Amino acid sequence: MRQGRFIAFEGGEGCGKSTQARLLADALRARGLSVDLTREPGGTPGAEAIRDLLLDPPGEGWGPEAEALLFAAARADHVARLIRPAIAQGRWVISDRFVDSSRAYQGGAGGVGDDAVQALHAIGSRGLRPDLTILLTVDPETALARTRARDGGNADAIGGRDAGYHRAVGETFGRLAEENPDEFKVISGDATPEEVQTAVWSAVAPLLEPSP
Amino acid sequence: MRQGRFIAFEGGEGCGKSTQARLLADALRARGLSVDLTREPGGTPGAEAIRDLLLDPPGEGWGPEAEALLFAAARADHVARLIRPAIAQGRWVISDRFVDSSRAYQGGAGGVGDDAVQALHAIGSRGLRPDLTILLTVDPETALARTRARDGGNADAIGGRDAGYHRAVGETFGRLAEENPDEFKVISGDATPEEVQTAVWSAVAPLLEPSP
Repeated sequence: MRQGRFIAFEGGEGCGKSTQARLLADALRARGLSVDLTREPGGTPGAEAIRDLLLDPPGEGWGPEAEALLFAAARADHVARLIRPAIAQGRWVISDRFVDSSRAYQGGAGGVGDDAVQALHAIGSRGLRPDLTILLTVDPETALARTRARDGGNADAIGGRDAGYHRAVGETFGRLAEENPDEFKVISGDATPEEVQTAVWSAVAPLLEPSP
Repeated sequence: MRQGRFIAFEGGEGCGKSTQARLLADALRARGLSVDLTREPGGTPGAEAIRDLLLDPPGEGWGPEAEALLFAAARADHVARLIRPAIAQGRWVISDRFVDSSRAYQGGAGGVGDDAVQALHAIGSRGLRPDLTILLTVDPETALARTRARDGGNADAIGGRDAGYHRAVGETFGRLAEENPDEFKVISGDATPEEVQTAVWSAVAPLLEPSP
């Protein structure tokens, strides 16, 4: 049996990841493929419980190290219980965020550092990488308008951080994409959802070809 | 101001750690010292929330890597929010379990390995070590009788693991103590609580001396 494929959508708040992940899953299913549409933090009962702790922390909120460890724990459960088994069964996995969100948020903006985040990913998930990572970039003002419309002023503990934090997130994502051009496809999320969807499909199409 | 001291009690299930930690805290307070009696996993609101996930897991239960990451996350919060501030204020911290429980349970018995557990501790808590670690050892049959009396057959997700797992925990603790004789004091927990308390006090007494 042919192995499945694993595609991650990455980007800052309000870039359109969730919408595009869903549209891609629909398009792949329309071609007869088996698709698991999932998200991080979350995707499994254990990881969803950790998500609740991350986005609505008890006590004073998490320090950057505890936060990075919790993301890695949720990811370890997600990879072991959902992503690896699905790929092994020939399914396609589309995830709204994966490890590069930890590298951008906790590693870059949070100051934990990329080496530490990568070490946690090696321990927790044996360093699993997607076959393709789609980075959606948006103009900061567009992103702010979208997240305000969505959250109505009730941002979660991470989305609600200040503009400097989110700028550092975006800069780190850009650097990760530059460093790994074979895996990343950078797509502007400023266009209409349909236009972005067309660009995403162009990026995914090569994965549909049978291996030589 | 003089720095406080940090003492950890370690050992398998039913070895008397919680009782001895409490008795030691009482004895130190009776000498006029400020003492924080705490435990792992837990000790802070965030770490207690992680404790609930660890001892009563959602879904299928945690794999060894996710479990190790969750313990390290709880510890990072405990160290940053309680242990380091207390020591800096000249308080004594007595903890029922610390990082060597992760080395024995997840590292040794769980198969994650000591290097990985130590790496998580370095990232999460900058590798903090106690000034003194008291390892209580008990005869396996005594331990079993004590935990059965305490838990009434409702062991948590970790305490309820099989005898082979708990034997590996005990062996790993013994090895850690041998490798670090300056920090560890190994005390038999088979005697009466009063006899054990006397032995614990002898181990702690040198920390009461003013530094030269």
